[in-house]
Amino acid sequence: MAAIRIGIMGYGNIGRGVELAVRQNDDMELAAVFTRRDPSTVTVATEGVAVHAAADLENGAAEDIDVLILCGGSATDLPEQTPRYAKVCNVVDSFDTHANIPQHFAAVDAAAKEGGHIGLISCGWDPGLFSLERLMGNVILPEGADYTFWGRGVSQGHSDAVRRIEGVADAKQYTVPVESALEAVRAGENPQLTTRQKHTRECFVVLEEGANAERVEREIKEMPNYFSDYDTTVHFISQEELDRDHAAMPHGGFVLRSGKTAGDSPCVIEYALKLASNPEFTANALVAYARAVHRLAQEGATGAKTVFDIAPAYLSPLSGEQLRATLL
Amino acid sequence: MAAIRIGIMGYGNIGRGVELAVRQNDDMELAAVFTRRDPSTVTVATEGVAVHAAADLENGAAEDIDVLILCGGSATDLPEQTPRYAKVCNVVDSFDTHANIPQHFAAVDAAAKEGGHIGLISCGWDPGLFSLERLMGNVILPEGADYTFWGRGVSQGHSDAVRRIEGVADAKQYTVPVESALEAVRAGENPQLTTRQKHTRECFVVLEEGANAERVEREIKEMPNYFSDYDTTVHFISQEELDRDHAAMPHGGFVLRSGKTAGDSPCVIEYALKLASNPEFTANALVAYARAVHRLAQEGATGAKTVFDIAPAYLSPLSGEQLRATLL
Repeated sequence: MAAIRIGIMGYGNIGRGVELAVRQNDDMELAAVFTRRDPSTVTVATEGVAVHAAADLENGAAEDIDVLILCGGSATDLPEQTPRYAKVCNVVDSFDTHANIPQHFAAVDAAAKEGGHIGLISCGWDPGLFSLERLMGNVILPEGADYTFWGRGVSQGHSDAVRRIEGVADAKQYTVPVESALEAVRAGENPQLTTRQKHTRECFVVLEEGANAERVEREIKEMPNYFSDYDTTVHFISQEELDRDHAAMPHGGFVLRSGKTAGDSPCVIEYALKLASNPEFTANALVAYARAVHRLAQEGATGAKTVFDIAPAYLSPLSGEQLRATLL
Repeated sequence: MAAIRIGIMGYGNIGRGVELAVRQNDDMELAAVFTRRDPSTVTVATEGVAVHAAADLENGAAEDIDVLILCGGSATDLPEQTPRYAKVCNVVDSFDTHANIPQHFAAVDAAAKEGGHIGLISCGWDPGLFSLERLMGNVILPEGADYTFWGRGVSQGHSDAVRRIEGVADAKQYTVPVESALEAVRAGENPQLTTRQKHTRECFVVLEEGANAERVEREIKEMPNYFSDYDTTVHFISQEELDRDHAAMPHGGFVLRSGKTAGDSPCVIEYALKLASNPEFTANALVAYARAVHRLAQEGATGAKTVFDIAPAYLSPLSGEQLRATLL
């Protein structure tokens, strides 16, 4: 069997993670990296892998890959890139702006069908694996409540928001689930939880010289949407401390479904992730789903898909016989 | 849309659970119960539902149901029933003898294809939901180790084994995961665990009058396969205590995948179930998968399937649009 040829679009944290993830899967190979920068300025870790300009995809380069994994951001990159490249090849993205998923799906669906390809969107751990667990919890326990907790982990969006405050030289923000809330859900208490009761936020901030710490702390804590609905702790530290203690990108979280069967018997389903590297784990999920996309495309499927549409067997390099003998 | 007509074969704990589970799903109705006993001796809880002899299925009764859920045991019932009835209608079973799954699958596949139906086998929580989590863990973290713990919960097979000992009037056996082993796995230590290190067994035993407690305890603890590889605790109690404190059928367990991404970043995935009623929860899973079987059959699919072959969206009564808007 020929290896599945993976292309990477965008060589940031996720792109580098995909490059690593491919190495853990013997049935895959990294075929090429695509970038919107000048390709001569990008050096990839894998020897012998070419770096192409993004535009090359529409000039024949798409024919040398089986699945293109889009590693850009959800704000501006993916809404444009995923439909665009779904016209020329199979694509997978990790689009995570929940509110805009319906319109993103529609755009990718139209483009992918036009091109005769598959576009799998919103594939990572949330949306992605967490979405799967929410769906499974709902179908197995139709009468119950859903709970999703995130963390403890670095939120890129919240870290960026803190860095935009005047007087902040650098910052990292951790989202932290409230342990007592998690315990109440685990105990089957089905609590009604406010935003503040579910998560706290912890910021590690490097001030610019002469900046007013009190003002910065107040501006963080009062920032609407990002912080005002949460209990937030702010620690001022040096750049050295930030670089030394907060360079990693850990994350994780919990999906719980708490409900009752019709015989009035309580059940709690819990799914938990603890990840030392958020982008590397996301990349591992993207790569597994790229395998499924390749297989579905070989069967003639086209259009937009989500993790809900993928039968689990398509994700594994093992045959049905092997899966039934070893994992069922 | 017409309701999905569910048939139940075998009106024991699981069959009663399926009857209850159907009530939680508005798109389903209980069409009939089938029994190998004299139908006049079986009274079902749902008003207006007919009880038929099992043989009626092969004499036309199968036409009035969309999916037959087989609620018998894996030792003797299902190996015979699932292939037999897959010839006349779509079937779902919870066959759980792991070692015999390949041959059961082959028999059901041949029969279901002959009849033009679908036979979904080994659908419950283990095998079933736990299998799914094992597969997902393996595809997302190809380099890692699998751990499955069961309990705390009542094992029917082990309880039966204790009851067969001379001098035992009644008994319940609990399988208990070893907390320190679970914690080591959660901490990413990837321990090598022996059978004894993963689970302990706890027995509550009612003696017959005049029975020798010491001999019974020794026979339990030394019983090969069932107890000799475990640390077992035996409590002698009265029938009243057993009936009062141990009538329920709780169960649960844990599936963990502990591994590293290729950037050497540790990740732990944990799935946990805590169930007040094992048979009711199993029934809820069977009913959700019956929905998927009905839909796949409407699309023209035939043959044997497992949970690995079912795209999650088929399990839900919601449309793709609804799922993407609410659960993704």
